[in-house]
Amino acid sequence: MGKGGKSHEETKSGEDENMAAWLVGLNTLKIQPFKLPPLGPHDARVRMKTMRCADFVVKEPMVIGHECAGIIEEVGSEVKNLVPGDRVALEPGISCWRCDLCKDGRYNLCPEMKFFATPPVHGSLAHQVVHPADLCFKLPDNVSLEEGAMCEPLSVGVHACRRANIGPETNVLVMGAGPIGLVTMMAARAFGAPRIVIVDVDDNRLSVAKNLGADGIVKVSTNMQDVAEEVERICKAMGGGVDVSFDCAGFNKTMSTALSATCAGGRVCLVGMGHHEMTVPLTPAAAREVDVIGIFRYRNTWPLCIEFLRSGKIDVKPLITHRFGFSQKEVEEAFETSAGGGSAIKVMFNL
Amino acid sequence: MGKGGKSHEETKSGEDENMAAWLVGLNTLKIQPFKLPPLGPHDARVRMKTMRCADFVVKEPMVIGHECAGIIEEVGSEVKNLVPGDRVALEPGISCWRCDLCKDGRYNLCPEMKFFATPPVHGSLAHQVVHPADLCFKLPDNVSLEEGAMCEPLSVGVHACRRANIGPETNVLVMGAGPIGLVTMMAARAFGAPRIVIVDVDDNRLSVAKNLGADGIVKVSTNMQDVAEEVERICKAMGGGVDVSFDCAGFNKTMSTALSATCAGGRVCLVGMGHHEMTVPLTPAAAREVDVIGIFRYRNTWPLCIEFLRSGKIDVKPLITHRFGFSQKEVEEAFETSAGGGSAIKVMFNL
Amino acid sequence: MGKGGKSHEETKSGEDENMAAWLVGLNTLKIQPFKLPPLGPHDARVRMKTMRCADFVVKEPMVIGHECAGIIEEVGSEVKNLVPGDRVALEPGISCWRCDLCKDGRYNLCPEMKFFATPPVHGSLAHQVVHPADLCFKLPDNVSLEEGAMCEPLSVGVHACRRANIGPETNVLVMGAGPIGLVTMMAARAFGAPRIVIVDVDDNRLSVAKNLGADGIVKVSTNMQDVAEEVERICKAMGGGVDVSFDCAGFNKTMSTALSATCAGGRVCLVGMGHHEMTVPLTPAAAREVDVIGIFRYRNTWPLCIEFLRSGKIDVKPLITHRFGFSQKEVEEAFETSAGGGSAIKVMFNL
Amino acid sequence: MGKGGKSHEETKSGEDENMAAWLVGLNTLKIQPFKLPPLGPHDARVRMKTMRCADFVVKEPMVIGHECAGIIEEVGSEVKNLVPGDRVALEPGISCWRCDLCKDGRYNLCPEMKFFATPPVHGSLAHQVVHPADLCFKLPDNVSLEEGAMCEPLSVGVHACRRANIGPETNVLVMGAGPIGLVTMMAARAFGAPRIVIVDVDDNRLSVAKNLGADGIVKVSTNMQDVAEEVERICKAMGGGVDVSFDCAGFNKTMSTALSATCAGGRVCLVGMGHHEMTVPLTPAAAREVDVIGIFRYRNTWPLCIEFLRSGKIDVKPLITHRFGFSQKEVEEAFETSAGGGSAIKVMFNL
Repeated sequence: MGKGGKSHEETKSGEDENMAAWLVGLNTLKIQPFKLPPLGPHDARVRMKTMRCADFVVKEPMVIGHECAGIIEEVGSEVKNLVPGDRVALEPGISCWRCDLCKDGRYNLCPEMKFFATPPVHGSLAHQVVHPADLCFKLPDNVSLEEGAMCEPLSVGVHACRRANIGPETNVLVMGAGPIGLVTMMAARAFGAPRIVIVDVDDNRLSVAKNLGADGIVKVSTNMQDVAEEVERICKAMGGGVDVSFDCAGFNKTMSTALSATCAGGRVCLVGMGHHEMTVPLTPAAAREVDVIGIFRYRNTWPLCIEFLRSGKIDVKPLITHRFGFSQKEVEEAFETSAGGGSAIKVMFNL
Repeated sequence: MGKGGKSHEETKSGEDENMAAWLVGLNTLKIQPFKLPPLGPHDARVRMKTMRCADFVVKEPMVIGHECAGIIEEVGSEVKNLVPGDRVALEPGISCWRCDLCKDGRYNLCPEMKFFATPPVHGSLAHQVVHPADLCFKLPDNVSLEEGAMCEPLSVGVHACRRANIGPETNVLVMGAGPIGLVTMMAARAFGAPRIVIVDVDDNRLSVAKNLGADGIVKVSTNMQDVAEEVERICKAMGGGVDVSFDCAGFNKTMSTALSATCAGGRVCLVGMGHHEMTVPLTPAAAREVDVIGIFRYRNTWPLCIEFLRSGKIDVKPLITHRFGFSQKEVEEAFETSAGGGSAIKVMFNL
Repeated sequence: MGKGGKSHEETKSGEDENMAAWLVGLNTLKIQPFKLPPLGPHDARVRMKTMRCADFVVKEPMVIGHECAGIIEEVGSEVKNLVPGDRVALEPGISCWRCDLCKDGRYNLCPEMKFFATPPVHGSLAHQVVHPADLCFKLPDNVSLEEGAMCEPLSVGVHACRRANIGPETNVLVMGAGPIGLVTMMAARAFGAPRIVIVDVDDNRLSVAKNLGADGIVKVSTNMQDVAEEVERICKAMGGGVDVSFDCAGFNKTMSTALSATCAGGRVCLVGMGHHEMTVPLTPAAAREVDVIGIFRYRNTWPLCIEFLRSGKIDVKPLITHRFGFSQKEVEEAFETSAGGGSAIKVMFNL
Repeated sequence: MGKGGKSHEETKSGEDENMAAWLVGLNTLKIQPFKLPPLGPHDARVRMKTMRCADFVVKEPMVIGHECAGIIEEVGSEVKNLVPGDRVALEPGISCWRCDLCKDGRYNLCPEMKFFATPPVHGSLAHQVVHPADLCFKLPDNVSLEEGAMCEPLSVGVHACRRANIGPETNVLVMGAGPIGLVTMMAARAFGAPRIVIVDVDDNRLSVAKNLGADGIVKVSTNMQDVAEEVERICKAMGGGVDVSFDCAGFNKTMSTALSATCAGGRVCLVGMGHHEMTVPLTPAAAREVDVIGIFRYRNTWPLCIEFLRSGKIDVKPLITHRFGFSQKEVEEAFETSAGGGSAIKVMFNL
């Protein structure tokens, strides 16, 4: 226990060996011990309870995982807002607070960001982690830990909606009905967007989007020749102009459609990361003052996500389609399920 | 003379036949009579005195010209701020003031805009025109009519700087040292930009830019392979990061360079209209939250342009490289000079 | 019928004598003929159907009334978006579109505004009026004319919320539960405010506010000595800090409470017009960067108000407490009811 | 020397006894030893060279001083941007970077700010201090240490100009020609304000302001009856409307004048802290949408201040009217001079 810290009376788990899911080779995961760092005065030690199974890109053996929630075990001597036993969702990135971007409130762009499971920083898929207490956000009673872990993907949508300035006057187009498209759609609705049309190539995904609240769905092809005709169908489904488009796929076709469908003075927000280089009609869009807004992760989104969950403005439970335990076997199965496409939206571990 | 209007005592020119430069066929200009419309209560009749020789795209016989200044001959009965004899610069576009964009202060995007020399609206290269008085801006004594006519191209740079939010903390990159690049550079300096680097493929243009105040000049090639290396040279010339880039050329190469050179959280403003479809690294730029800002003409720029000219923050005189009279022969020569490239920046008619 | 205009087939009312409610002396109303102006190409002639009974300040005989809705009888030759028979709500102010404020999108501040029932401009409490078609907003099928007339008071709340930047992260305090306080509260909710506390001296008003959706109500006194204690109760009722306060009363006490209750970096929006000169703790508020935002009427609010009514995000029907016909006797009764205070919130005429 | 730190080769001063100016009783200053804290990995140890003599409010014995510049003696192990020998200006406030305001880029409002010479935090009037390296800003060769120390008062003006959105289109009124009024005027000019009128009751101060670049000066009385007439004279001196007013005095009279003189849609920025409670015509100002903007200290201003000094856009040298050494006697004299009013603008110590 940290000097002067306050620990969770009911558990001695701080002294147990801490196990974590390590990526030890190409697509090879292994549950192995993971030594916790010392608890600083502004830190919290958190017993992880739920975590999403996510993609990873690593170079050396490291612990994976970054969308998570758990229970406070112990807090540092200076921590005032948390006590052991509190249920919390974790924001995964620790920024430097010394660079110009941090000081200017754009800490998500910090070049020295330490982010769970982004090499060389270990992730959070472990029994316990030590994390700055100001990045552990207490959950209200009516928000479950599993919902709390969903603050991370939801934050992407919330940050996109903030940067694109979504409000009750913004008709929204979402390109792509995958997980990012769905959370963006839900966030746009929570920001007050009166009409949302979502576009995809897949009927099942569109059907899910419709059930989750899309006002209009439009099935499209991947054929670049169809853009103009599809834009027409999108505007018809919207019943008016598109003020803001979110490209949640990031391909030439989706971005071209977004740029063409958005009305003069609107915005296109590029959320998905498909093509690195894009071939798109940027000039005619710029000539209508359609701005292209970039997005990187999120900042200051956890309190708002939790408020959306608390108030019921967003219900993330339908997005959680699969659940696994934290054994070697189940971890492997979870990643297979997650990568396999199919009906999986979000795959969760319960530790 | 309009009912209740106030006319210029010293002249009877309102009764003379009004001559104008008509485009009557492919690249065929002819000075012919041009009947003036009646003077409305909020209109002014202006005797044109100076006008830039500009490109045109027309389908049927019409009067060309849109960058102009002149002297008030007569004003409508409700006009309060102008009197005959006033020297004025003319904003060329008349918007509808009934659509959502007009009402929201973005009148430059008005879909019903009537703009000098944009078909089917006649231009202003005539001895006299009738124009809304609120689009005729009085020039201070120390600003010549020729400088006043330069408010139009300068407005492009001013509008771009406003949309890109240029101020005393914004290090600026300008891609392209042609006329648009030069006015954008001058506007950025007037908005307070502390460091401006300008890039071009042509030594002469760069030399002009240097003389007009660029802090750094970088000569580049049109070879797409060189982008990374050229970005490095640009940042070195800047002595730091680029906060805002203006692409005043609009080609794949220039836009790729702008996107790559701009620092996280910055903006790229697409001013020039080269390629319609662009192949550029949009995704990595978006992932650094570099936004792409579009530009269409300008709005509410004349008062600020005139203030910049009055205070000397901008000196447009070096941009005026050639002058012609308003005879059939000189009009033809002027267009040849203007189109011929070479050392011509801005070619002016004096009527 | 105007030249080239399109008229409502089913009626010949354009030829009937048009009657209106004239204020002819101190508090003396008389229903008298009111001659319609000619129909311009961009105008509409509207048969008024419903109108709120409102206060008035006049100097000479004139027609009163400005919160209204009706049915299109005839449109000018250039009107494209309306046809006779359309049900419309009317925005009452006609701005000049020639001044700097109009051109900059702040037309509500236009010094030459012509506003229904603001001397010397006649109001709209008449069987018919002629009005610019772009200020007549078509109502969806599920929005009644009576609800449409409520767009005017609702616009005050909507404009205040826009200027104060209300969104899903803004905890809101409303000082005053009169009609303006109530529409501001409803607008704030529609803009996504998660928690709204409303304050008044009157239990009945607070009870109405509670029924209309306030999360917390706080009864206060008019005693300046109580501010600190009441601020504490307000923050307790909010369950956290106040991000934006709306002072919908405009007295020293209400403004002092608003300034003191608002957290660092927040905003206080002064909506009500009580005291002309105010004695308030402005300096300590400024030292916490609490900005004071001013409000004058509204701009571009009708489309959003109609959308709020259409979607059900705002239900104005409970605000309409009394209804009268358009006879001399009923008009007099209506004004007595409206001025009498008591339980009247909004008193409507049905013509 | 801190572990892993890099120290200034030429000096052993880190080992000397560190002396500082302590306030030990009511207006009693004494130069006494001041023990330095250990050097953290992100800290710098700075040898102070110049410091302004400023007011203080203290309760217990503590070191005073907060406007200062010096030379780096030693840096912590993680510091990359500074080396011993660098000349730096110091930003005096250390914020927590854990609260919502810090994370949102408004760190000046941090409730846990530790600020030089604000009890219980010691000031910087000492031979050496230890300070976070990211709050030590390197000075260019052409900016002296004395100018560097002026970044602090200048930051107040810069922050006010940023919050009030000053640019090349903003006509500015400054109420009060004391030190804060002067730095605000200079900052407004550097942000591009085309016309600045400054107002005071004192001819000498106005004369200084005129010499420092005011376009117009207006002498006023403290009589509240004169506001309307003085507003007229201010507008005449401006040659047009006032877009933004800075009240750098903070009294009923100055704030009333600022509110009345500012045009519709403008802003009044309350910089000075005179009256706690103010009696001012807030309602008529709000009804013209004149917003009142609050100011607390500054954030992220040092780099811009240094750029203004480097480029010569601001010359602070004329503001430095008196200089003293760092002996017991001179320190006492300095505070007498500073408090005595008269011609003193800024009084500096050279250590």
